[in-house]
Amino acid sequence: MAESTDAGGRYVEPGKPYDRDTNYIEDRITRDGRDGWPVEAGRYRLIAARACPWANRTIIVRRLLGLEDAISLGLPGPTHDQRSWTFDLDPGGVDPVLGIERLQQAYFARFSGYPRGITVPAIVDIPSGAVVTNNFPQITIDFETEWTEFHREGAPDLYPKALREEIDEVNRYVYHEVNNGVYKAGFAGSQEAYEHAYTELFDRLDWLSARLENQRYLVGDTITEADIRLFTTLARFDAVYNGHFKCNRSKLAEMPVLWAYARDLFQTPGFGDTIDFAQIKAHYYLVHRDINPSGIVPVGPDETVWLTPHGRDELGGRPFGDGTPPPPPREGEGVPELRSA
Amino acid sequence: MAESTDAGGRYVEPGKPYDRDTNYIEDRITRDGRDGWPVEAGRYRLIAARACPWANRTIIVRRLLGLEDAISLGLPGPTHDQRSWTFDLDPGGVDPVLGIERLQQAYFARFSGYPRGITVPAIVDIPSGAVVTNNFPQITIDFETEWTEFHREGAPDLYPKALREEIDEVNRYVYHEVNNGVYKAGFAGSQEAYEHAYTELFDRLDWLSARLENQRYLVGDTITEADIRLFTTLARFDAVYNGHFKCNRSKLAEMPVLWAYARDLFQTPGFGDTIDFAQIKAHYYLVHRDINPSGIVPVGPDETVWLTPHGRDELGGRPFGDGTPPPPPREGEGVPELRSA
Repeated sequence: MAESTDAGGRYVEPGKPYDRDTNYIEDRITRDGRDGWPVEAGRYRLIAARACPWANRTIIVRRLLGLEDAISLGLPGPTHDQRSWTFDLDPGGVDPVLGIERLQQAYFARFSGYPRGITVPAIVDIPSGAVVTNNFPQITIDFETEWTEFHREGAPDLYPKALREEIDEVNRYVYHEVNNGVYKAGFAGSQEAYEHAYTELFDRLDWLSARLENQRYLVGDTITEADIRLFTTLARFDAVYNGHFKCNRSKLAEMPVLWAYARDLFQTPGFGDTIDFAQIKAHYYLVHRDINPSGIVPVGPDETVWLTPHGRDELGGRPFGDGTPPPPPREGEGVPELRSA
Repeated sequence: MAESTDAGGRYVEPGKPYDRDTNYIEDRITRDGRDGWPVEAGRYRLIAARACPWANRTIIVRRLLGLEDAISLGLPGPTHDQRSWTFDLDPGGVDPVLGIERLQQAYFARFSGYPRGITVPAIVDIPSGAVVTNNFPQITIDFETEWTEFHREGAPDLYPKALREEIDEVNRYVYHEVNNGVYKAGFAGSQEAYEHAYTELFDRLDWLSARLENQRYLVGDTITEADIRLFTTLARFDAVYNGHFKCNRSKLAEMPVLWAYARDLFQTPGFGDTIDFAQIKAHYYLVHRDINPSGIVPVGPDETVWLTPHGRDELGGRPFGDGTPPPPPREGEGVPELRSA
């Protein structure tokens, strides 16, 4: 995503709590094509910057389900200006499939002069070059439920019918108080708004710790959509949110249950192999100049601690249920090795 | 101290490393009065904000040596503007002994239009209301060596003759790479300057950890000036330097030897009872608006962890040598209880 800024390019509005613009392009790609966008291999391109936690979810789900052949992946670089994400990592600064320099062009191809945030993840219809949807909470659910005919053999069921109500409920808490909670703390325009977000965040993390103490995953005994949504925030916690967003009651590494849970997922194929800490830090520290005017990017913390033993296998659980782990990332879709600091 | 800013009130000068103004008023208060300032009980007032690590040293040494009756203490509040420290915590915003609102007035009483930083600690001659010295590294040494006739019974020898060379050497490293090192990281005007300071800082912390692994104090087997100088930086590390100054390879709480060493000192009379975390955080996060434009002060981390067992007594050592611990702080000189976060 790219958080919406006001006319002055500010993320923090003095005196105000942070208010995420949640108006998205809500079309869905479905089996029955009822919105005009039928499921079809090779027709769509997922645009999902590695830096962004909301986009990160889609990269993980695409990999776990083996949708690489059906849906290609475009990766804008970690930083962006007022006009949003660019394909600066690609040769010539142009997305090789869409032939555009800025993701904004695909939004304008859909709605001329599109006035809202140019966000990732976005799915683009390759023939028309137009954005179909940027409705991030629906994108992963549709990968799981509408794209089933293109799932790999052994793909896990990340959104099992019998558990959907519970997954949705956990996701609701996690979204408001954790995923978006860290932004509410970091972009708070007043001490009061910050402290409110801080308290909600850590209360919810304590609740999650208690839930996960004797249970390997958030819902049921396999990895689900709920784990994926929590993971992408936890992965950024110590590298960014602890300092940059002042979520500093403790580091993730100081919350034993959540830290073990997060490392367990990180070390599971499809999770840690989507995380690029250098891109994550560059994004937050370089883009949000109104909370980090110098643009200096911290060297720490040590990334290699993510590979230390977590001991969570003792809790049992079947990571992929009746399915299997995904194979290694495709050529060109890997991430750099972890760096010590 | 108040770090010098440029004409625009900036601590960070883009493109430049941080360069502390080290020109101080270097007069000394001595037994022989050779600079015109003889040691004399009741004549001088120490001005030392609790927020400031350099001033904190003088508060600790005054307390350990029992100089409270000889040298009174004035405490400016934690925040200040371009014209520097004010007595906003005192009734009517006026220091009750000097009768001034701003420390600047005492500097101007000494040198009309004094052009450099209005810093704490400063020692003021009460009769003339003029600053005698703000030369912080000398102030504590003179408390230890020139004010001996006013030391309490059982005052420790914080600067033993036989160890001075070694203490001075450790202090030199600690000053450049730790005490001032965190500022060089936090006020760096370029990525390169920041990374240089970060590397020097953590290399030196590793060196200190190794030195302290089997040795309770930095030099000899008792508390010395060297421990006091390191302590005031360590006490601020997780509350401020880790996030605000991007010294984030790890928290102090993640460096086992230094963390135990710091807690050992904190729990020793004369150290933790001089630390006011609320004032410390208010100072850094409210004053340095060019690195924290919102002025929001983090809630965390939990302060009560400073009281957890440290186990360092097993290493032996004699905290106060042949002396004794100081009694509790004087009425009106205590600090608030530690807060959990």
